[in-house]
Amino acid sequence: MNGAESLLRAAAAAGVEACFANPGTTELPLVQALDRVPTIRAVLGLFEGVCTGAADGYGRMTRRPALTLLHLGPGLANGLANLHNARRAGTPIVNLVGEQATSHLPFDAPLTSDIQALAASVSSWVRTAASSEALSADGVNAITAAAAGRVATLIVPSDCQRGPGRALITAPCPPPAEPVADEAVEKAASMLTSRGPAVLLLGGRALTEAGLRAAARVGAATGSRVIVETFPARMERGGGLPSPQRLPYYMEQARAMLSGAGAIVLVGARKPVTFFGHPGQPGSTVPETAAVSVLAAASQDGAEDAAGALERLANRLRAPADIDGSVAPAPPVFPSGSLTPETLAAGIAACQPEGAIVADESVSSGFAYFPLAAGSARHTYLCHVGGALGQGLPMATGAAIACPDRPVIAFQADGSGMYTLQALWTHAREGLDVTTVICANRSYQILQFELAGLGGRPGSAAAGLLDLGRPNLDWVSLANGMGVPARRAVTADELVDALEWAFADPGPHVVEAIL
Amino acid sequence: MNGAESLLRAAAAAGVEACFANPGTTELPLVQALDRVPTIRAVLGLFEGVCTGAADGYGRMTRRPALTLLHLGPGLANGLANLHNARRAGTPIVNLVGEQATSHLPFDAPLTSDIQALAASVSSWVRTAASSEALSADGVNAITAAAAGRVATLIVPSDCQRGPGRALITAPCPPPAEPVADEAVEKAASMLTSRGPAVLLLGGRALTEAGLRAAARVGAATGSRVIVETFPARMERGGGLPSPQRLPYYMEQARAMLSGAGAIVLVGARKPVTFFGHPGQPGSTVPETAAVSVLAAASQDGAEDAAGALERLANRLRAPADIDGSVAPAPPVFPSGSLTPETLAAGIAACQPEGAIVADESVSSGFAYFPLAAGSARHTYLCHVGGALGQGLPMATGAAIACPDRPVIAFQADGSGMYTLQALWTHAREGLDVTTVICANRSYQILQFELAGLGGRPGSAAAGLLDLGRPNLDWVSLANGMGVPARRAVTADELVDALEWAFADPGPHVVEAIL
Repeated sequence: MNGAESLLRAAAAAGVEACFANPGTTELPLVQALDRVPTIRAVLGLFEGVCTGAADGYGRMTRRPALTLLHLGPGLANGLANLHNARRAGTPIVNLVGEQATSHLPFDAPLTSDIQALAASVSSWVRTAASSEALSADGVNAITAAAAGRVATLIVPSDCQRGPGRALITAPCPPPAEPVADEAVEKAASMLTSRGPAVLLLGGRALTEAGLRAAARVGAATGSRVIVETFPARMERGGGLPSPQRLPYYMEQARAMLSGAGAIVLVGARKPVTFFGHPGQPGSTVPETAAVSVLAAASQDGAEDAAGALERLANRLRAPADIDGSVAPAPPVFPSGSLTPETLAAGIAACQPEGAIVADESVSSGFAYFPLAAGSARHTYLCHVGGALGQGLPMATGAAIACPDRPVIAFQADGSGMYTLQALWTHAREGLDVTTVICANRSYQILQFELAGLGGRPGSAAAGLLDLGRPNLDWVSLANGMGVPARRAVTADELVDALEWAFADPGPHVVEAIL
Repeated sequence: MNGAESLLRAAAAAGVEACFANPGTTELPLVQALDRVPTIRAVLGLFEGVCTGAADGYGRMTRRPALTLLHLGPGLANGLANLHNARRAGTPIVNLVGEQATSHLPFDAPLTSDIQALAASVSSWVRTAASSEALSADGVNAITAAAAGRVATLIVPSDCQRGPGRALITAPCPPPAEPVADEAVEKAASMLTSRGPAVLLLGGRALTEAGLRAAARVGAATGSRVIVETFPARMERGGGLPSPQRLPYYMEQARAMLSGAGAIVLVGARKPVTFFGHPGQPGSTVPETAAVSVLAAASQDGAEDAAGALERLANRLRAPADIDGSVAPAPPVFPSGSLTPETLAAGIAACQPEGAIVADESVSSGFAYFPLAAGSARHTYLCHVGGALGQGLPMATGAAIACPDRPVIAFQADGSGMYTLQALWTHAREGLDVTTVICANRSYQILQFELAGLGGRPGSAAAGLLDLGRPNLDWVSLANGMGVPARRAVTADELVDALEWAFADPGPHVVEAIL
């Protein structure tokens, strides 16, 4: 058993079941070892951003790390944007990055670069393996570091992959989330009861069914408003679950929603800030009147059991267990007429199958979807957290590998979809039940909104940089080119037909919605 | 005039004429400023790797830096792989990377990350702008740093773009390459005449017409062999130019070619090393018998005038000026029959128009092309230098922007082509005269070769990771989806027809060659 195999065996023993790979020469012993450790499913991405985004989607759904397998510094670089997103989402991921043979590093061969520096920019844990014998232990340490919701990167020189490995007797599975301290529960109870009107701001691990129900109980018992962070990494929704409002993306709207709060208790959410700085405006959307306290850390800051903390808080407040925020699901309303962002959102909300996983990178076209989907069938909602574009299609890939029995919907803006469109090929290769809905507004529309806010009219250079037309992208051709059947919809009725076509048959489909 | 406009005006005054952009919110003042500085052509890429690879192609052809305009850390990250290639090629590039407003950085908003660390991994010069007033000077410093063949990265907080700018009275154009010291010429003359059999290993700036002719004179005068580095960033070829052998990629072949050399004089080339380390094998392919000296530094290590140094050396050796290595161009030989890597290479070599620029990322499918094209019409050859995949289509983009009157051929492997296929859309948007020839072998074949070298047969996991079939990519559909007309060729005769179709009409075309 060589080092590569010992590493993969240790990972398998620690519960790793997937490896999203785009390997090169320096990773070939690990490629060979995948043949000998068949419980780890090897999934090829044709670009590394597909692999890292897929590992993010997989980790969000399973709460266990997948491996990525990346080729040297440039391979890791290509995966960094989606690792940035994963870091912000608090997703466990273990990157395995091949490195030149130790003896070859001093020669500064063409592909040599500073992998450590790149890895450190997104990883909480980085190590370069020093020997083949220690590689299995390195792997377990990486998995342990990642388990709490972190990106860990193990850089593996090719000689360490090839040399003799050492089997680990035990490879412990990662620990679950930690309970919060009693003092945090007491503090939250005091804040909510003494400094009203209060807001319970939920995020991260608070957004499970249990967390949402407990938050609803807390809200009912204290008169506090329950609000969800703007970009939740994962949230259970629909089917009658409580459905709190979401903190808006735009600064003015977010401030208006939080206005007047005397206390804000953060439960798995960070203190809200604006996405970008605006001249003369504060960076936070929290009103000066509000005291802020933390019941459970955001996922990117710690692995605290936010949902459990909410249950303890509800019980501490003697909130009745039956006032849990359940609502009656709304009957589906199928849109008709012209296709707009609103009818597109309504169409997806109405058609999405029971148990769907919705990976949302719809950007400006999807603003209408979140409130509408509150009444949809039960589903899991995965949001674009870190803001780096190109996450949606890969995230859907990983979610589908994680949950092969659930339909996945990639609700995807066209501009950001182009960053990692290669994911569609993996949908086809793996036969994944992913329906991709492209919001074809043929522009970087959110930038057009922002530019309009700066005043003045764009000239030809600026207009050209924010416009995806000339020529229009043809997503039916693009999808077909990667082996995915596709349809185009130009009316809301055609959209509904196309969605029903896609959902009727498990497997990858693309629906291009012309807005 | 705000800081953004002052920066672009200074760049324009220093000779910058192109900006390859994929901007976001933090770059919008620079986007607006592009409207006011129309001598800088703004070119949109739908993925940042397109922008950085295009800047590489542009810089290789003009020897002047283009700008890139990238969105925060994730945008830079997406462009790093091709910046790695540019760094290895010694290409001048100035990256402008937007940053959060200075006051907003402490809030650690979702898109915030350590841009400096990412930039430093590929850049010789990195600065974060500190004020709007200093931005024009920062820009000139970046251009000056880049001019010598370096990647320079200027990180520009959005407040520095928006605040008041200061006009520069003069923005000096970058200096040309530096002449080498007389001692270097003397040393080379001594090495070549006293330690034969000697090798003159050419690379970088030595591979101009003047450099090649001077090297031929030196070779004839001293009996030295002239060899070209394995992956030249840019080389003039064909039309009767001298055509030295190329140092092979594979270790054994490279060693055999250099075997017995008593001296190796490096002229714009680095001391040759193997691309990867191999167990028990030396990392260099230089024989122990050979003394190595440097006449002119490789482009990535300095901006020395390698071609001028060769001319001085030839004159120092009193080499006759008329023995300049001219050869008669070979008449084109059009291939027929089945389409193989050999007939594909022959087809391109035979059909390529006079004055073409050939951007080669053909990887394993293109090994036959280089020797065949020695007899082709005069052309410029751009090679994949740094080994990071996804360079070919973007490099062709930049070369076409740099040289609008020359036809460009992107000779592109299918696997690496998928990394940055978005470049095809820019070919269409800008109406670029780029003919992309896809080598559709539907595998990571070079890895299959490497894996075979490791012994053993790949199992299903390994085979799946090295195979691009299941489903096959359809490059005709992919190209059409981005607005580029395309044809498929399955025989050599169809290839010749398709190439003639593509070359007959200036504009973007794709020819998918099924191997």
